[in-house]
Amino acid sequence: MKIGIMGFGVVGSGVGEIIRNSSDGLASRSGEKIEIAKILDLRDFPDSPFDCFTKDFNEILEDQEIGIVAEVMGGTNPAYDFTKKLLMAGKHVVTSNKELVAKHGTELLQIARENHVSYLFEASVGGGIPIIRPLYSSLSANELTEVLGILNGTTNYILTQMIKEDTTFSDALKSAQEKGYAEKDPTADVEGHDTCRKIAILSSLAFGKFVDSEEIPTEGITKITLEDVAYADAMGCVIKLLGMASKEEEGVYARVCPALLKKDHPLAGIDDVFNGIMVKGDAIGDVMFYGRGAGSLPTASAVVSDIIDAVKHKTEHIGLGWTEGEAGYLKDGSGQKFRYYVRLSGDAAAYPKDAYQVITLKDLAFDGEFAILTPELSEGEFAALKEEISKTNPILGTLRMVEG
Amino acid sequence: MKIGIMGFGVVGSGVGEIIRNSSDGLASRSGEKIEIAKILDLRDFPDSPFDCFTKDFNEILEDQEIGIVAEVMGGTNPAYDFTKKLLMAGKHVVTSNKELVAKHGTELLQIARENHVSYLFEASVGGGIPIIRPLYSSLSANELTEVLGILNGTTNYILTQMIKEDTTFSDALKSAQEKGYAEKDPTADVEGHDTCRKIAILSSLAFGKFVDSEEIPTEGITKITLEDVAYADAMGCVIKLLGMASKEEEGVYARVCPALLKKDHPLAGIDDVFNGIMVKGDAIGDVMFYGRGAGSLPTASAVVSDIIDAVKHKTEHIGLGWTEGEAGYLKDGSGQKFRYYVRLSGDAAAYPKDAYQVITLKDLAFDGEFAILTPELSEGEFAALKEEISKTNPILGTLRMVEG
Repeated sequence: MKIGIMGFGVVGSGVGEIIRNSSDGLASRSGEKIEIAKILDLRDFPDSPFDCFTKDFNEILEDQEIGIVAEVMGGTNPAYDFTKKLLMAGKHVVTSNKELVAKHGTELLQIARENHVSYLFEASVGGGIPIIRPLYSSLSANELTEVLGILNGTTNYILTQMIKEDTTFSDALKSAQEKGYAEKDPTADVEGHDTCRKIAILSSLAFGKFVDSEEIPTEGITKITLEDVAYADAMGCVIKLLGMASKEEEGVYARVCPALLKKDHPLAGIDDVFNGIMVKGDAIGDVMFYGRGAGSLPTASAVVSDIIDAVKHKTEHIGLGWTEGEAGYLKDGSGQKFRYYVRLSGDAAAYPKDAYQVITLKDLAFDGEFAILTPELSEGEFAALKEEISKTNPILGTLRMVEG
Repeated sequence: MKIGIMGFGVVGSGVGEIIRNSSDGLASRSGEKIEIAKILDLRDFPDSPFDCFTKDFNEILEDQEIGIVAEVMGGTNPAYDFTKKLLMAGKHVVTSNKELVAKHGTELLQIARENHVSYLFEASVGGGIPIIRPLYSSLSANELTEVLGILNGTTNYILTQMIKEDTTFSDALKSAQEKGYAEKDPTADVEGHDTCRKIAILSSLAFGKFVDSEEIPTEGITKITLEDVAYADAMGCVIKLLGMASKEEEGVYARVCPALLKKDHPLAGIDDVFNGIMVKGDAIGDVMFYGRGAGSLPTASAVVSDIIDAVKHKTEHIGLGWTEGEAGYLKDGSGQKFRYYVRLSGDAAAYPKDAYQVITLKDLAFDGEFAILTPELSEGEFAALKEEISKTNPILGTLRMVEG
């Protein structure tokens, strides 16, 4: 089987490396020798062991021998246009491009179906952690009701540095950039957009209908301070950036936000650049998947596993995916109830303790502030409470608590 | 698609319940309505909602309309004979029977291959945790080098009770029996046989060649005492019953034993009846799967996911499995090096501290004993050391330590 690779960056070069180095193993596992016929990239790679580079997409599109293309270029443009043309030309496409899958997945999956080819995207979520295929296949006897995950390695590294090394957010971000875990412009990671696309893909697949990432309430970690980390610790919690989605009777909820997690929660121990994804099903209960959520080889190994799957099913459409959701399928989340942590300026002793758990830290550094933990409140109720509180005590920070 | 169920015990009734209750969902996920045509069991179930019971295996074997049979009766006899006949008659068989898969899997997989049907066994390891299919499919781009798991819920419950509740082994076993987690005769669980079958299946699949469970050195948890638990705690460790297998240049090692795990090891936090399985691959690094390793519905959901897979591939043989291993493929393990914990009777102050880490506990209850942690030793080296030690200090207990 001849394949094409579009994009020779971190993931694309990893795909090339795995296919070159494990050629016999892959052949025995897929049933055919897998050969890289063309690599599309606008850059030159004079030192690469490959000599099949092209700058012209049509050379891949029109090559009748290429049956599978790995789209690992990222971004929606021109990846969207290229993917569409390849699927319509009867080629299987496998991708690590979460942005494209989250935005145009419904349409691309439909085109794949119509053309009896597959559009596979194991590498779009959780790097090399097997999650897409288990959701689609191994857990297929379950009605899935919840997905909760630490889906972004960069922010998890930053939060781990803050929690374990007492490093400030900006120093931790700098360290992440130095180690190559964060990009120069870290917005997509630290503002939660990356996590948002991933939870959109996971919830679309788990619940069967499209969840639009642009409609998911999303909050990043830029406002988290070492004070919040210390109060969380005093409450037996850690702060993690979570992507969460649940299917309720009235519809689907999805959200991305930093939240307090009790230390005995299975996701609480997932540190550094690791990802963890919990899935709840009616028969299985909670299942968790854990591993490296990013990096060249882990992500590339997920791309290659999809290539192997496409080789094994080369004459078929692998029917994983979702359908268009009806209007109002994704709820706006304002009715969802959470307990809230609120850090306040003022004297805890003067604060009424009947309704809230009040947390004070003895350290001098925390003089003049304290925190409360509210009962479960909807967004509206919490907004009203904040207005009430802020009349007497300036609010320094707030976080949701995720339980169960 | 009409199916048969052989055995209407804990798992079989769960399979029935899932298929009855999720009939529409399963039909949409598999592409066909799944209908239970016959249930084989020697017992009577007058209160069951099903009315298709039979006591005659031939009624399933000879029913041309039955394309898939779930063998959930357990044991090797008559399950082995029945499975063979069904596969030879061109029916797919899915199973939760770890004993049969561990013992006759190689032959049954071969018969399935020859008859263009599938023999699927997701439910044989880890209850409902997706592990067989990810090993076969999602991680197919990796050369897998290690599998390490807490594979038995009963013993993990007992050890958790000992660690967290300070309960003795025999009281914890009694509690497990009262809760239905342990059988009246708990031998297969507490002596490690169940874990042994599961690590045999996982290592056969992960490394591609048959690992015979009968050749795996296996040790249970009956000798573990609360003193061991306390010393482990002082060393920053917990005691877990582990199934482990690794692929080295010279061959494959496999072993079942209770071992010390550092508390920050991903498997250390897996408590109660939960199972956790870590897999190491050359590209992905460590991946972990976690969930309920037993129970009616979780295990049944794995059986049903295999049924769905068989429906989707009804005209095909799904090629997961392994081949016969050559002589000497599984090493005997005597050369494998571990650090060892040794609990001794005597006075720690009188003990030479140059070569070993010496651990003493201040509690009166531990008066007159102490523990040491050795450097890495092979089995022979450790045997020699034990002989040497026991000349001056009676040995009260020993455990391996598992690192990394």
